[in-house]
Amino acid sequence: MRMVDLIEKKRDGLELSTEEIQHIVTGYTDGEIADYQMSAFLMAVYFQNMSDRERADLTLAMAGSGDQIDLSAIEGVKVDKHSTGGVGDTTTLVLGPLVAACGVPVAKMSGRGLGHTGGTIDKLEAIEGFHVELSTEDFIKQVNDIKVAVIGQSGNLTPADKKLYALRDVTATVNSIPLIASSIMSKKIAAGANAIVLDVKTGEGAFMKTEEDAKELAHAMVGIGNATGRKTMAIISDMSQPLGFAIGNALEVKEAIETLQGKGPEDLTELCLVLGSQMVVVGGKAATLEEARAMLVQAIESGEALRIFKQFIESQGGNPAVVDDVNLLPQAAFKTEVPSKLEGYISNMVADDIGTAAMVLGAGRATKESEIDLAVGIVLHKKVGDFVGEGESIATVYSNTEDVAECLDMLYNSVEYSSEPVEKIPLISAVITD
Amino acid sequence: MRMVDLIEKKRDGLELSTEEIQHIVTGYTDGEIADYQMSAFLMAVYFQNMSDRERADLTLAMAGSGDQIDLSAIEGVKVDKHSTGGVGDTTTLVLGPLVAACGVPVAKMSGRGLGHTGGTIDKLEAIEGFHVELSTEDFIKQVNDIKVAVIGQSGNLTPADKKLYALRDVTATVNSIPLIASSIMSKKIAAGANAIVLDVKTGEGAFMKTEEDAKELAHAMVGIGNATGRKTMAIISDMSQPLGFAIGNALEVKEAIETLQGKGPEDLTELCLVLGSQMVVVGGKAATLEEARAMLVQAIESGEALRIFKQFIESQGGNPAVVDDVNLLPQAAFKTEVPSKLEGYISNMVADDIGTAAMVLGAGRATKESEIDLAVGIVLHKKVGDFVGEGESIATVYSNTEDVAECLDMLYNSVEYSSEPVEKIPLISAVITD
Repeated sequence: MRMVDLIEKKRDGLELSTEEIQHIVTGYTDGEIADYQMSAFLMAVYFQNMSDRERADLTLAMAGSGDQIDLSAIEGVKVDKHSTGGVGDTTTLVLGPLVAACGVPVAKMSGRGLGHTGGTIDKLEAIEGFHVELSTEDFIKQVNDIKVAVIGQSGNLTPADKKLYALRDVTATVNSIPLIASSIMSKKIAAGANAIVLDVKTGEGAFMKTEEDAKELAHAMVGIGNATGRKTMAIISDMSQPLGFAIGNALEVKEAIETLQGKGPEDLTELCLVLGSQMVVVGGKAATLEEARAMLVQAIESGEALRIFKQFIESQGGNPAVVDDVNLLPQAAFKTEVPSKLEGYISNMVADDIGTAAMVLGAGRATKESEIDLAVGIVLHKKVGDFVGEGESIATVYSNTEDVAECLDMLYNSVEYSSEPVEKIPLISAVITD
Repeated sequence: MRMVDLIEKKRDGLELSTEEIQHIVTGYTDGEIADYQMSAFLMAVYFQNMSDRERADLTLAMAGSGDQIDLSAIEGVKVDKHSTGGVGDTTTLVLGPLVAACGVPVAKMSGRGLGHTGGTIDKLEAIEGFHVELSTEDFIKQVNDIKVAVIGQSGNLTPADKKLYALRDVTATVNSIPLIASSIMSKKIAAGANAIVLDVKTGEGAFMKTEEDAKELAHAMVGIGNATGRKTMAIISDMSQPLGFAIGNALEVKEAIETLQGKGPEDLTELCLVLGSQMVVVGGKAATLEEARAMLVQAIESGEALRIFKQFIESQGGNPAVVDDVNLLPQAAFKTEVPSKLEGYISNMVADDIGTAAMVLGAGRATKESEIDLAVGIVLHKKVGDFVGEGESIATVYSNTEDVAECLDMLYNSVEYSSEPVEKIPLISAVITD
């Protein structure tokens, strides 16, 4: 098999066989296929797309390119959730204990990552003593005992994807639906998921700017999941403004606790119930999304979800008292209100810009070497559609430096007003179940 | 300027600026732009094409990437001819002295190359003593004196094109009209041409298999020529069967001499008159193609073209007596007739296959290291449309080995018959003058 012939085949719009795709992924991972051939191939894929079968084959080939986590010692269907990323997204913290309370095992492998705020592990580390350095045995035992555990990324997972992503980044081949979808799905499959729920974000703050693109990506991933025997569902949710009110690590933990107490922001609570319902259904613990939702509401109202969250914290070395006293979380030295300079209805709060405003406080990493300040961040008081009077606070800035001028400038620039009432942005625009 | 942004721009179908194209070509030649970025760019060009302006900019950038030959010391318009390659194409040997006889200077830089038979230099070296190792001064003086000279390729011409071609070859990006056209034109411009005449071959034996593709390439090259101030004309000519009768180095020299004597094959003579007319017009020695053709016919009939050919041979160390006695050319040890196994009208003589049959005799190079046997080759006696009786000879094989079974097999396999009369294949299907 010559790579130049396989490039030509894809270039001409023909379908590659399972063996051919395996050859490309293995050859590239092993360094037998050169970067310059792979990048030409990726550009051909950009223009010619891939069939459902090719996408599934590419996903499995990438999942199989390195270590694969064996979760078979955990009872039940191992459900993983993936979000395509956004600002102030606290769903993972809430969903873990919430679906665990409904009997779905959550064996989560998570990372730190770059971005406006830290990753799931950074957020959890805002809880004193919490750590993710579990042995595989302890990890599996904990999931079997209390249905939820989080472990740091380890091992050599999907090296093909890592190498491909680095190449795509410098060859203008990132924005290709089959390549994005197979990259995400290969990582979930290598991490041991039997079933997958996907939250595809859309809007200015998201990777997929238009709803059309977001839907195409969601269908692509659900298609791959079902073709590879992993029951998969997806939703399209808004990321034109931040989710919930809090953006910052400890602030988001506090918001997660409030949500598990039934006192969280409306949008975050709704998103958790919708994603959680899909997780409970694909996890085989309910027959319908309605039935699953009722179970989740009950888990919040009964306090069972919160109880599991406490157990989860304790099992991983953290101080569970934080759940009853959120003042035990890291506290910022300064609080600055952000009074509105205008009166009117808020018509836009650009998620990306507000995320960057939190990052300049130290809430997130610009580079791998950046240190995160877990205490700092922003809590919004208004969302799109809300009326705000002149001088009324739009948000509170939590910082460890007295000077927050740069952050305030960014916040002010991120908000737009209208003199006329503005409709609330629908949170979930599509639910994709097959 | 980041290469990834330029790849994206082309990927999205936007036009690159002159500066951007120059940056890409210079950066790639210097090794500052990696192969993997260039190959993604080339594939994007494959799908998104290039505007006329972009093609001209790419051509000039590649022409300027290395040495450029300065022919300004030669009086008149320096016209170069290029053929996209074929089997038994003896036109260069004929055209040099023929248009020189009409006052157009022919300062030809030529190579050896791979293929069914040798390049122009190999063919000329079939003449005893002939050499192409001229100093630049002698080369220019000879063109000024007798209007025609051939010199071997020297210097570092179009390194960008060499590097790009090697990359295209392994990334399935050879077959792109803007890339093919700019590659050819950049070499002609770097070699000092003020005006260019192009013979774009079409048919099974040619690089462009369909007439549509050939026309597109011809228009692309004429467009580049005119946009870069080099008056350019082109024709589309048939290469489904070999041109003329002779395939082989010394055999083609003999055929060239016969053509200059007015006794050459009809198709080769016609092609030389059509291409020669364009050369005389773009060379500014005639106002119309008709006028130019009359001058060329006169140059043959008067013996002037043949006289210049003799002078040309003598000037470059060759024995001019060969023109009057072609038996002075290298002679093969064995002559084998190829009797037809069937009776009928010849409906096909696959040019490529007949070329390969000549190559196995030793007439051409399969690799750079192959030694050419100048004496061997094939002389056809029939062409498509001709009637042949059973046992009548289709061709004569000239070899230096007694066993020519492999060559004969190939020849027999290359010929198809019809019981009904077959039309002659039109030699020239289009003349493109602007």
